[in-house]
Amino acid sequence: MLHKINHIGIAVHSLEEVLPLYRDTLCMPFHGTEEVSEQKVRVAMLGIGESTIELLEPTAPDSPIAKFLEKNGQGIHHIAYEVDDIMAAIACLKERGVRMIDDAPRNGAHGSLIAFIHPKSSCSVLTELCQCGHE
Amino acid sequence: MLHKINHIGIAVHSLEEVLPLYRDTLCMPFHGTEEVSEQKVRVAMLGIGESTIELLEPTAPDSPIAKFLEKNGQGIHHIAYEVDDIMAAIACLKERGVRMIDDAPRNGAHGSLIAFIHPKSSCSVLTELCQCGHE
Repeated sequence: MLHKINHIGIAVHSLEEVLPLYRDTLCMPFHGTEEVSEQKVRVAMLGIGESTIELLEPTAPDSPIAKFLEKNGQGIHHIAYEVDDIMAAIACLKERGVRMIDDAPRNGAHGSLIAFIHPKSSCSVLTELCQCGHE
Repeated sequence: MLHKINHIGIAVHSLEEVLPLYRDTLCMPFHGTEEVSEQKVRVAMLGIGESTIELLEPTAPDSPIAKFLEKNGQGIHHIAYEVDDIMAAIACLKERGVRMIDDAPRNGAHGSLIAFIHPKSSCSVLTELCQCGHE
């Protein structure tokens, strides 16, 4: 059902402050930034093998990332696994008793469709399903 | 310098309680368990693409994972990136001003050599370098 780790989302106060670590010190290829207005974040993407590190900076005080930072400080926010068919994956997980935050997919970065599993069903690890876009 | 995400370490109270989620519900191939006495943890490994999910259960009250659980509860503990030559990678990062928890590598799971970057140098994300073993 899950092919690979699509990305790891890391909550940061400022992309400008954290980007040099991943781009220049750890030498991960930098794939640019994108604003995801639906989630009120600005995202910087860096390649690592078949996966991506996504640095997530809030763009508004009521962004979920702003709330996470306030409670936890900077750190890993979620892990996203890639699926071919997100509707089928959601249906399959619900059949197995998994509680979803998103019963229907919503828009993620770079044209993807995403849905979060509820932390109560994923041992407190915020877990995303991600179907890649074709943009 | 970094090839891929080698594994994501997730701190859990009990492998027996959490393993069914990853093995049976998310259908990740289960690669077995191993005790890493040096770090006082029992590790369950599950495949996902080119990476592994490592569930980490403490085996003693003074295990670093026990302390993490006490402070944070269950959740993502660290991210490990694979390198070819861990000694060279440590030297390179130190030249770039990175503070290491481990200036010299120590033994990780399944014959690997590992070294942690200090969270102060990695924006509070506990970050491991990992050179695979040949066992």
